[in-house]
Amino acid sequence: MTHANDLHAALDPASIAIVGASDNPHKVGGRPILYMKRYGYRGTIYPINPARAEVQGLKAYPDLAALPAAPEMAIVAVAGDEAVRAVEACAARGVKVAVVMASGFGEVGAAGKVLQDRMLAAARGAGMRMIGPNCQGIANLASGTIASFSTMFHEIEPQDGPVAIISQSGACAAAIYVLARQRGLAVRHAHATGNEADVTVSDLAREVVRDPGVGLLLLYLEAIPNPAVLAQAAGEARARDVAIVAVKAGRTASGQKAASSHTGALASEDRVVDAFLAKHGIWRADDPHALVSAGHLYLKGWRPKSERIVVVSNSGASCVMAADAAEAFGLPLAEITPATKEKMTAVLPGFATAVNPIDVTGALLTDSGMFERLLPVIAAGVDADLMLAALPIAGAGYDVPRYAREFAAHAAATGCAIAVAATQAEVRRAFEEAGLPSFEREREAMQALAQLARHAALLRNAPAQASAAERARPLPKLEGGGKFVGEAQSLALLAAAGLSVIAHRLCTSEAEARAAFAALGGPVAIKASSPDAPHKTELGLVALGVADADAAAREFVRQRVGLESLEARFDGVIVARMAKKGRELALGARVDPQFGPIVMIGDGGIYLEALKDFVLLLPPFDAAEARAALGRLRIAPLLAGVRGEAPRDLDAVAQIAVRLGAAIVAWQDQVASIDINPLMVYAAGEGAVALDALIELASDT
Amino acid sequence: MTHANDLHAALDPASIAIVGASDNPHKVGGRPILYMKRYGYRGTIYPINPARAEVQGLKAYPDLAALPAAPEMAIVAVAGDEAVRAVEACAARGVKVAVVMASGFGEVGAAGKVLQDRMLAAARGAGMRMIGPNCQGIANLASGTIASFSTMFHEIEPQDGPVAIISQSGACAAAIYVLARQRGLAVRHAHATGNEADVTVSDLAREVVRDPGVGLLLLYLEAIPNPAVLAQAAGEARARDVAIVAVKAGRTASGQKAASSHTGALASEDRVVDAFLAKHGIWRADDPHALVSAGHLYLKGWRPKSERIVVVSNSGASCVMAADAAEAFGLPLAEITPATKEKMTAVLPGFATAVNPIDVTGALLTDSGMFERLLPVIAAGVDADLMLAALPIAGAGYDVPRYAREFAAHAAATGCAIAVAATQAEVRRAFEEAGLPSFEREREAMQALAQLARHAALLRNAPAQASAAERARPLPKLEGGGKFVGEAQSLALLAAAGLSVIAHRLCTSEAEARAAFAALGGPVAIKASSPDAPHKTELGLVALGVADADAAAREFVRQRVGLESLEARFDGVIVARMAKKGRELALGARVDPQFGPIVMIGDGGIYLEALKDFVLLLPPFDAAEARAALGRLRIAPLLAGVRGEAPRDLDAVAQIAVRLGAAIVAWQDQVASIDINPLMVYAAGEGAVALDALIELASDT
Repeated sequence: MTHANDLHAALDPASIAIVGASDNPHKVGGRPILYMKRYGYRGTIYPINPARAEVQGLKAYPDLAALPAAPEMAIVAVAGDEAVRAVEACAARGVKVAVVMASGFGEVGAAGKVLQDRMLAAARGAGMRMIGPNCQGIANLASGTIASFSTMFHEIEPQDGPVAIISQSGACAAAIYVLARQRGLAVRHAHATGNEADVTVSDLAREVVRDPGVGLLLLYLEAIPNPAVLAQAAGEARARDVAIVAVKAGRTASGQKAASSHTGALASEDRVVDAFLAKHGIWRADDPHALVSAGHLYLKGWRPKSERIVVVSNSGASCVMAADAAEAFGLPLAEITPATKEKMTAVLPGFATAVNPIDVTGALLTDSGMFERLLPVIAAGVDADLMLAALPIAGAGYDVPRYAREFAAHAAATGCAIAVAATQAEVRRAFEEAGLPSFEREREAMQALAQLARHAALLRNAPAQASAAERARPLPKLEGGGKFVGEAQSLALLAAAGLSVIAHRLCTSEAEARAAFAALGGPVAIKASSPDAPHKTELGLVALGVADADAAAREFVRQRVGLESLEARFDGVIVARMAKKGRELALGARVDPQFGPIVMIGDGGIYLEALKDFVLLLPPFDAAEARAALGRLRIAPLLAGVRGEAPRDLDAVAQIAVRLGAAIVAWQDQVASIDINPLMVYAAGEGAVALDALIELASDT
Repeated sequence: MTHANDLHAALDPASIAIVGASDNPHKVGGRPILYMKRYGYRGTIYPINPARAEVQGLKAYPDLAALPAAPEMAIVAVAGDEAVRAVEACAARGVKVAVVMASGFGEVGAAGKVLQDRMLAAARGAGMRMIGPNCQGIANLASGTIASFSTMFHEIEPQDGPVAIISQSGACAAAIYVLARQRGLAVRHAHATGNEADVTVSDLAREVVRDPGVGLLLLYLEAIPNPAVLAQAAGEARARDVAIVAVKAGRTASGQKAASSHTGALASEDRVVDAFLAKHGIWRADDPHALVSAGHLYLKGWRPKSERIVVVSNSGASCVMAADAAEAFGLPLAEITPATKEKMTAVLPGFATAVNPIDVTGALLTDSGMFERLLPVIAAGVDADLMLAALPIAGAGYDVPRYAREFAAHAAATGCAIAVAATQAEVRRAFEEAGLPSFEREREAMQALAQLARHAALLRNAPAQASAAERARPLPKLEGGGKFVGEAQSLALLAAAGLSVIAHRLCTSEAEARAAFAALGGPVAIKASSPDAPHKTELGLVALGVADADAAAREFVRQRVGLESLEARFDGVIVARMAKKGRELALGARVDPQFGPIVMIGDGGIYLEALKDFVLLLPPFDAAEARAALGRLRIAPLLAGVRGEAPRDLDAVAQIAVRLGAAIVAWQDQVASIDINPLMVYAAGEGAVALDALIELASDT
């Protein structure tokens, strides 16, 4: 699926043929010509129309064969079978990229899929890339390449600038474009990929982040068919300090159902998507509105080093609500030291209190120099990387342009990221003219600042690379067959991968069971081990607290007979030390068909499924990442120790998780999943130990 | 604090004096006169200004004494001591309501508070009501009473209509007003109460809901000093089908800190506020933006009977995101039956699938009759009370006014509440002109619909009234003294109030302990009972699993000696049956200084505090309400039964909670709190039982 560098022609082709070119600039085959003439496409346009000598004032050709040279791009603006034939003709003629606009292919079912596959085969056979079908197309305002029939450039005049939009959905690309332009963002790229038979959003993202004029990339995705390409795009974007924000729709079961009826997108477990995007420094937004919301903050180049915020307002109520919002969004309010408090009190009105949020009060109306005096005190004495300036009401009598200049100067001097919140459009306009991002809603401003700070932190931490030492050895070729590895072997493999497992012996005779009892010291747990009996508890093949050697021998016999009666293979019977009581967590790993190896850490026991208190990590990751993930569990406060309980040994859990990650990476061809439940976790310094383990084999092993 | 009916003069006074009247219409003492002349105040205006014979063309008077008659309202637009003297003069002159605008009183500290108290005393002494000080004042567009110096009526021209805004904060009142007017809501009342020395937001709310022209009440509160008045206002509003939406700021610890430095507002535990507002059918919004967001939906009179939603869009991506949002907001997507699906398929384009969300696809552009055919199919066959119509892009070529007419007709015919989402302002405008509430953001439209449906459900259920049978008997006069009631008596009192407690005997001799063991059957739990030793476990005064009569007798002695060594009173020693294992919940009740009796139901054991998984209820409430509250616990899925565990007896828990509520209501003068932890809950039908109970006495008992 990798066709290196050959999407350059999609963004800046030297020549473009339009198959189905129309003289009517409001038809699908006419609009691209109109746009390209209007927005300065500098290459050659070849209208293809057997019925006309000229189209929109340009010389027309009867077919591709009649062209003087092979066009780099072809827009296919004809429908059905004709579109298929056109794609085949493009491939034959040596076109580099075909943009297929017609719908009625993969998205409508099996018959359409057959036609789509024919187009794809023709393209692949000739090394031609294909965008679509069922797509709105490509628009690059820098090169004037508007291979798009979207009406969006009628709705709002384009302005070339640092924002790029890439969307599977055409309507969504247009909506994001309109939202961005309404917010004053200048947009260079606006691409919609439709059915993605060949070129995906990720492919275009990888190409677009190489455009040095791009500073912010906004994506709308319903599926991520090639995560490795998106990861690569994200890596290049990170290197160039280009932020990527993405809506991945189909977050919920209903949404995935709707997505599959929209573009037939493949559903993936949503929290895996979260983990993947976070790992690669892509911020996940909830909807197109949230996608553009923080745009100006990113483009200012602000990359806050902390989440500490200072709030300044002329309304006490705004201060109260901002404090609520800061706590809700998890932004710590920067401290005002006593020394700064003293200086601040000197510049604030008599009845104002120098606390953060800082309420300059309604006195601002009669004291326009307030901010000029206050902001230097903040710059010198308040350790904040974020600032919310909330002016809910600042109408007649307020010198808003002056405030705007002063806040802009503060941002320039300190590097502090400032978001302005103002109910009145004219107040926002004044701040925007001074270069400060402005919001109607305080909560939205605060949320955008939180996003900026957290995204900056994500972008500072490149994804972990596995060190040689951390790599697990490949799995030996496993004998036998079937779906599972017996418990004894599962434990042995995990122990070999460096995970701490409960002390145990695999016994194949009564005598060995007695000897194990003696060696381990009672009471013991006894469990049958067989690749054919993965769910031993349900089968009655587990005995806990077996108290003497005779009982252990009797239990051995009972379990061997039990396995025999099930016609299950007999690995032996595990005699294990009874673990002392700790906090039970669950650890798991599996190989996702799209995203590859994944590690899960969760609240253990039988409640894992009901309460779903778990986190996911994509290996390789390091112990710090695993520790941070543990902190996101709902039960995190319990792990930290409550009511005199000791804190749990989370370093041990993190270490085990890292090794489990290395194991699933090394074993991914042979292993489908690994379950460790429970992992018994002891007080800090006392470790954690796997009590039960089950390895499931990949189906083709 | 109750002054019935005397706030009518605040909203529609026959005459108004302005103390400190200014000829300059942009000063605090001039602006109200300008506004009242402009917006048609029909009563008499008396400017008070000793220096002028005329103010803004009206005859001026040197002082209140010189007026021909006592004015019903006086605006005090002078500052400091002068304001205090003016309030005293108003009280002496027989003014009914004084609006005190000056700041520098209670909000600035002790010295200001002294002045404020003097004003209040003067007002109270004369039976005069006082609004403020430090307030922006009153504005009633129906009567033209604009006793407000806010610039908001310069910012956006007023329009009398069904919306009322009451806010402690003046800036917030103005911001809400601007937001509401920008959304096209017509506002009659806009009041700001400032320091609330006398009149509170609740007082004005009670008055305003009696205005038959008011259909929606929006509140901004930082404290609820008189919840009973707000409850009464809410009751009257409910009776008239007037919805109340409130921002109660100071939700978080930081917010409460900020609030206390803003207006000195009293902090109350935020979840109690949630419970109080919900009980009285007041919807709690997060910020002023959310306050106005659903305004048009309420004013359409829609009161959805269910939360089932149907989504219609011309964008597949919108359908996917709407499905995500519906699930996120907990709105079930209405089912499309096979019969309806068939009819729908007939009217949709060939490549569209008849599922909900319904994607009419981009074919809408060339098929303007789509909705005319589709909507009757929905009306006849889709059981939904909510509809989202999402048209992210519908520019040139789309017959938007026609769609708007058709959706409006659908709403009129079915009563279905419709919210429209459109990125483009002109599309929203077309729908608004057809009378349909429109939103830029799909998520906001969806959230507004969810709010409407849930609020309607709240408004259908009037707060429960305690039946005579449910009332607990008053507490007998308790002997002794101290902070706590001994456990034996605590259990006895709860048992008398109808709560199920563990079988036990209070023993005062070894012989009684032996007899109790024999009667209850071992093993037993043994605990010392003393009002002076509430925390028995920490004191080593609990023994579990005592297995024979001799051991019980020995434990009796040990615990009696233990209490003696603590010099604690000796009620006796409780010998209790060991409870069989169940799921542990915690139940509690306390008397909140503001909101009165409260019942808490939470996940029990030592994790209650760390995980804070609890719900609050304000008694009286019924078993159904308690059951619903149990469903909001995070552990609710566990209580419903997981992995083959039986569901828990939640009916028993609900019954116990109802009785605990009745008890705390009956005992509130004597009791500060009641703790039941654990309440052991068994499988459905097997009940629940209190194992430990502790009653804390009110400090003045």
